[in-house]
Amino acid sequence: MDASALRVGQGFRLADIDPSATPGFDPDELNGHGAKKRGAAALEENVPRLSDLQERLFASSTGGATDGVLLIVQAMDTAGKGGIMRHVVGAVDPQGVLITAFKKPTEEELAHDFLWRVERRVPGPGVIGVFDRSHYEDVLIGRVRSLAGPDEIERRYGAIVDFERGLVERGIRVVKVMLHIGKDEQKERLAERLGRADKHWKYNPGDVDERLLWDAYQDAYQLAIERTSTGEAPWHVVPANRKWYARLAVQQLLIDALEGIDPQWPAADFDVEHEKARLAAS
Amino acid sequence: MDASALRVGQGFRLADIDPSATPGFDPDELNGHGAKKRGAAALEENVPRLSDLQERLFASSTGGATDGVLLIVQAMDTAGKGGIMRHVVGAVDPQGVLITAFKKPTEEELAHDFLWRVERRVPGPGVIGVFDRSHYEDVLIGRVRSLAGPDEIERRYGAIVDFERGLVERGIRVVKVMLHIGKDEQKERLAERLGRADKHWKYNPGDVDERLLWDAYQDAYQLAIERTSTGEAPWHVVPANRKWYARLAVQQLLIDALEGIDPQWPAADFDVEHEKARLAAS
Repeated sequence: MDASALRVGQGFRLADIDPSATPGFDPDELNGHGAKKRGAAALEENVPRLSDLQERLFASSTGGATDGVLLIVQAMDTAGKGGIMRHVVGAVDPQGVLITAFKKPTEEELAHDFLWRVERRVPGPGVIGVFDRSHYEDVLIGRVRSLAGPDEIERRYGAIVDFERGLVERGIRVVKVMLHIGKDEQKERLAERLGRADKHWKYNPGDVDERLLWDAYQDAYQLAIERTSTGEAPWHVVPANRKWYARLAVQQLLIDALEGIDPQWPAADFDVEHEKARLAAS
Repeated sequence: MDASALRVGQGFRLADIDPSATPGFDPDELNGHGAKKRGAAALEENVPRLSDLQERLFASSTGGATDGVLLIVQAMDTAGKGGIMRHVVGAVDPQGVLITAFKKPTEEELAHDFLWRVERRVPGPGVIGVFDRSHYEDVLIGRVRSLAGPDEIERRYGAIVDFERGLVERGIRVVKVMLHIGKDEQKERLAERLGRADKHWKYNPGDVDERLLWDAYQDAYQLAIERTSTGEAPWHVVPANRKWYARLAVQQLLIDALEGIDPQWPAADFDVEHEKARLAAS
């Protein structure tokens, strides 16, 4: 699929994006199955390519390359972050991946600048880092719940742009994704969690508290995306009412980032023939 | 398969274990394919069971359960640790897994007791922690290379037993695995790495240095296993000349540990009907 349509550009308006759309992916591309099945099959088909790129990225770092990838995933509750972690990120070698789920900040974290805890989880060379929520919470819930004043929120937009530029300059591709679900779809997904005893653990009464602030969150996303979508670290808004589509789109964004790096197997830093002789004699 | 045959018991002798064996797994169980294919198919078949248990473990921790699992994998170079991480551990939700690859200790780590860096990576409740190498290096290479004196090595055996007992008392099942390959098989695998440009990055001249000390390492493993295999945290020696077998065996050991916990979905800590009404009104 072509994921370039998901990239945020000039005049971006979140409210204009249909959460049920499937841009860049033609549901009629394959015949004989439902879109869900076709999407899952396409996801599976791309795994070898993604795995190969990930292994090359990891290998290249052993030869001194400094490239890495940071995938940032933001979304309203139930939009499918967990499914992305499991089905997209989970399909690559876990040894080359560093997932961080950012929760409500601890006392220690609150005693530092909002970027402190995030900087500590930036992936090293060769690694695909994944943020499940991120420093963007500090300008999303931070704004909606007035956890910081307007001046501080303003400062944070700028600090985020600077921080991410620094990452890119160090060789880390920053892939920013908002999974965009509709309000009705969220209601259905929360209802499903409430309806099944084996899903209750995924439900939190706070989810409805946040849901009641839906419009304020959409505004906060609009603003955050506007203020922090840059040439070097653009946002991508991924319609997420169809889980198969969102997974496929994020997988493609990862593949695109890795292809942009085009990581190469490093040359041996030892004498291959000499080592063959040593091994043969051992 | 029945993995109980892999458990180290009284009178254990590493030298008596055939690295090409497949104990507990009858290669004739399934017909029509080679053992390798059958093993891969069996591995795939067990994934849903392992995934379900992992999700239950994670869920149970949100309800206050303190259970966790720590899989410790030790082996000579090329024995297949990476394949275990990728194909066994990599098949479960990465959000519930914490893999740590222990390398040569840093200056900071060396300034602390040998268990310091390990304690910091013990999995929390609900998590499957995986150690790719571990504190056992400190009684393996530590002994073979005389990185510590005999008295200190002696002290470490006891410290390890105490440390692991503490983990078990906290609710962490400790699954200790030695992947056991033969010396000839290692030679073939190292030769393969030397023979392919895209595998050179996996080769290190130090691998042959360690290989030259093969017998000393086998002795060190024998001793370490003898001294630290306890009722609460026994060792398992997994013949590893056949990769498909080793993966299947470690997967089974993980499943057995999780079945021993028998994690349950936690009860809702909120009023389900009340939340349904709030959601409906939102």
